Amino acid sequence: MLILKHMLNYQPGTLDLAFQALGDPTRRTLVERLAAGPQTVSELARPLPMSLPAVMLHLKVLEESGLVTSEKKGRVRTCRIDPRMLSQAERWVADRRAMWERSLDALGAFLDEPKEEK
Amino acid sequence: MLILKHMLNYQPGTLDLAFQALGDPTRRTLVERLAAGPQTVSELARPLPMSLPAVMLHLKVLEESGLVTSEKKGRVRTCRIDPRMLSQAERWVADRRAMWERSLDALGAFLDEPKEEK
Repeated sequence: MLILKHMLNYQPGTLDLAFQALGDPTRRTLVERLAAGPQTVSELARPLPMSLPAVMLHLKVLEESGLVTSEKKGRVRTCRIDPRMLSQAERWVADRRAMWERSLDALGAFLDEPKEEK
Repeated sequence: MLILKHMLNYQPGTLDLAFQALGDPTRRTLVERLAAGPQTVSELARPLPMSLPAVMLHLKVLEESGLVTSEKKGRVRTCRIDPRMLSQAERWVADRRAMWERSLDALGAFLDEPKEEK
């Protein structure tokens, strides 16, 4: 059931781009701040020690990865988290960690077996 | 408490490298297979449609990221998951998603307030 759900939602390209996008500290900071609520591009850029075009480039990478969406009203562009891709990335890592723990449990159970039965 | 725990465990360089490492489908396949238990480099390479040096390069990226460790005995190198970095990556994404859900709950609570109180 979990595996089927995983397969149905699996989009190789976007999961690639999502992890690549998260592999940069500035982009993780942007995701962190957007997780607290939508913000405009200028609000996002203000505290960052870089130019507005540099911030916009990072936001473009985040949008292309599916982690962030944006909407323009007049001259103001507002960014927000797209939780679907964040959930997909979280599920991928969580499933692998769970798999690793099960394999460790299996090894533990084997080692705990009474010696005479080995 | 959660924030303090997060700050104490936070290692920018390695979280960067971990997400970058996961941004490649071959490396995710390697992590997926190692999550089921330790494997030698040749076992890992056998089903993959690429040369042994190419697989070893991917494993090097995974080792540098801290997601995988390896140990050589004689001529055989065995790889295994290092669960600490997998947990760290999982926690980073899970914390951001939880933060996003709380911000949505707060918005929902605001919108659900009786109209006369707005």
